[in-house]
Amino acid sequence: MSLTVDALAETLAQVRQKQPVVHVITNWVTAGDVAGTLHAVGARPIMAFALEEVNDIVSGANALVLNLGTPDPSRIKAMLQAGHCANSLSLPVIFDPVGVGASRFRAEAAERILSDLRIAIIRGNRAEIGALAGMGGELRGIDTATAPPDLLAAAGTLSLRTEAVVAVTGPQDLVVSGGKAVIVENGHPMMSQVTGMGCRLTALIGAFAAVETDLIAATVGAIAFFGLAGEQAALRAEGPGTFKAAFLDAIYSLTPAEFQRGLKLTEQKIR
Amino acid sequence: MSLTVDALAETLAQVRQKQPVVHVITNWVTAGDVAGTLHAVGARPIMAFALEEVNDIVSGANALVLNLGTPDPSRIKAMLQAGHCANSLSLPVIFDPVGVGASRFRAEAAERILSDLRIAIIRGNRAEIGALAGMGGELRGIDTATAPPDLLAAAGTLSLRTEAVVAVTGPQDLVVSGGKAVIVENGHPMMSQVTGMGCRLTALIGAFAAVETDLIAATVGAIAFFGLAGEQAALRAEGPGTFKAAFLDAIYSLTPAEFQRGLKLTEQKIR
Amino acid sequence: MSLTVDALAETLAQVRQKQPVVHVITNWVTAGDVAGTLHAVGARPIMAFALEEVNDIVSGANALVLNLGTPDPSRIKAMLQAGHCANSLSLPVIFDPVGVGASRFRAEAAERILSDLRIAIIRGNRAEIGALAGMGGELRGIDTATAPPDLLAAAGTLSLRTEAVVAVTGPQDLVVSGGKAVIVENGHPMMSQVTGMGCRLTALIGAFAAVETDLIAATVGAIAFFGLAGEQAALRAEGPGTFKAAFLDAIYSLTPAEFQRGLKLTEQKIR
Repeated sequence: MSLTVDALAETLAQVRQKQPVVHVITNWVTAGDVAGTLHAVGARPIMAFALEEVNDIVSGANALVLNLGTPDPSRIKAMLQAGHCANSLSLPVIFDPVGVGASRFRAEAAERILSDLRIAIIRGNRAEIGALAGMGGELRGIDTATAPPDLLAAAGTLSLRTEAVVAVTGPQDLVVSGGKAVIVENGHPMMSQVTGMGCRLTALIGAFAAVETDLIAATVGAIAFFGLAGEQAALRAEGPGTFKAAFLDAIYSLTPAEFQRGLKLTEQKIR
Repeated sequence: MSLTVDALAETLAQVRQKQPVVHVITNWVTAGDVAGTLHAVGARPIMAFALEEVNDIVSGANALVLNLGTPDPSRIKAMLQAGHCANSLSLPVIFDPVGVGASRFRAEAAERILSDLRIAIIRGNRAEIGALAGMGGELRGIDTATAPPDLLAAAGTLSLRTEAVVAVTGPQDLVVSGGKAVIVENGHPMMSQVTGMGCRLTALIGAFAAVETDLIAATVGAIAFFGLAGEQAALRAEGPGTFKAAFLDAIYSLTPAEFQRGLKLTEQKIR
Repeated sequence: MSLTVDALAETLAQVRQKQPVVHVITNWVTAGDVAGTLHAVGARPIMAFALEEVNDIVSGANALVLNLGTPDPSRIKAMLQAGHCANSLSLPVIFDPVGVGASRFRAEAAERILSDLRIAIIRGNRAEIGALAGMGGELRGIDTATAPPDLLAAAGTLSLRTEAVVAVTGPQDLVVSGGKAVIVENGHPMMSQVTGMGCRLTALIGAFAAVETDLIAATVGAIAFFGLAGEQAALRAEGPGTFKAAFLDAIYSLTPAEFQRGLKLTEQKIR
């Protein structure tokens, strides 16, 4: 694999320079935090979900992010239409199966998205990836979950079936594609105390994938950068409230050189 | 009444330990703050409003919170369906009549919710409770209001009619049920300068009611804890922005022992 | 023109004293930030978009703000209905054409709003005002844009056509009406790093217009106050996260006297 720390740092520099437009169709609980994170890293967020305009919005974007939180039938329809448009333009489509284990409606919507669209990258927590892979994992509320029995196998199965890069984030982050896996050790426990960190990260992966055609590199880079920002923010935080502010500051100010020095990656083969 | 400071502190400990799932059907203005508050206290928020999934979501939850802000007919329908499901499962349903005096539509929706569902706890500001009780109180915008002439009588009437615990929050917080009233003196004036504090508090009551079957204790405990967090946050804040961050920090870090020491309650009989 | 620093400071004092109710029909990405800003300055925000209630809500309000972000057909319909109601009550209607260059749907909705309603004030960034004026300007994502070739001419043309006060905000802020222009030099570059600052500002203009019948004074006053709050916040911020908190603090605590001392305005004639 061609993951060098130089190349990952260069991807961050590219995001800041090219300021990619990231179209996000997402839930209304964390939408503001998602937009703020994209904005802080130097990307340009746009959110739009009306069938009347999603094609226009996708046409002006560099990546499309689909987030399954607070779903309803018309939002799912918009996701499918926007996804088809992005596929036809060869834009990367990133999918976040928020709460997929929590209802049959979300499970069916996720299946439809995965079967109808060409998804470049899937990011979820352990229970969400377990559920998508059909290998269990229990979701209780959002942002918390128990893991499926064999996380690496679940991610690998899902990646094989969808041909997408699959990222499972939690105490340890795992990126799987084509029989290879990368473990990202960056991050901080305080990140699990803040609502919508997964939604923010998936959108950030979209910004990285908008400027980096190697999708594994884009995914690993975004996750490591996000984790490093969390490490820096934790140094200044006294709880989730001050953490949120310090985290956005870190996303904004972390330099490619600091990113390069702070990366903690391990590559491994599956089986 | 069996409100002991020991028992209230124990309820907080139970929330942190059991991490109840709280399903919130709410407005999109303060949804992120509501989820963040639940997350910070140790509960697990999930928000969902599509008719296609609310029953599944309620079935996996430990409490249901209905918030009347930014209503529309399909959200009200979802609240009723979710409420029926919660009633059939004997989950506590907590209702926040946001802005009920501001439109006939909200008034009718609130009446429908109160007549069709078994509501465990109602929390509103003085004007909202006055309007629900049919005893006046004028609402101007959200979060601010003039009080009905006799607040205790309004809350008592509403509690008798609905058989719910009724909480009226403002400069002084009042919890009324079955001819008894508890006054909570915790809190800080800065709390009235921040949008969505009422929405956050109603959701927090949901988290406490999910682990404590004595609904008066759950309500009083959540309100006092919330007020104490406000007092602590005010020590570090220079305005509503820094207050919001410090408040979330306090919700996260206040211990049961600190809670027990900080409680300021007075019980009294009505009439 | 009658713009005196005394009168502008007095408008701020009036907002704090009269606490006007501002009805905002807006996107769900920045709705919480918008409500928080109105609340912090001393106004009373209310958000409502259901056709069933917008007339009641408008009737209890002192100004109406229409924001084009995350549009859908039913929200546009609600904006038109609310706008007609506000026009009939002679309440000021303030319009923010968020992302108007990004889709044909937004362009048509904006045209409809401008042709069907009497709009008092329009505020947008350079690309949005350029697009509305039919004079170009390219939008990439939200909050960032390239300028139309002649900004002053674009704003002047739009003001003549709509009879509205037109405000174009960016590195330098321009307020145009009736052949006159005011340049506001308050502000700080960090403001461009935070999502939804334009949405917040448009709502704040609504609060000022609710208490000041001279619409140029209301617009200039709100923009200068907003910029001054940004200057103060930047002194305490280390990035967009801490900036957001410090900004809300400044909106809350800046006094009329400080406002008066900090104003940086230049008036000029067009052509």
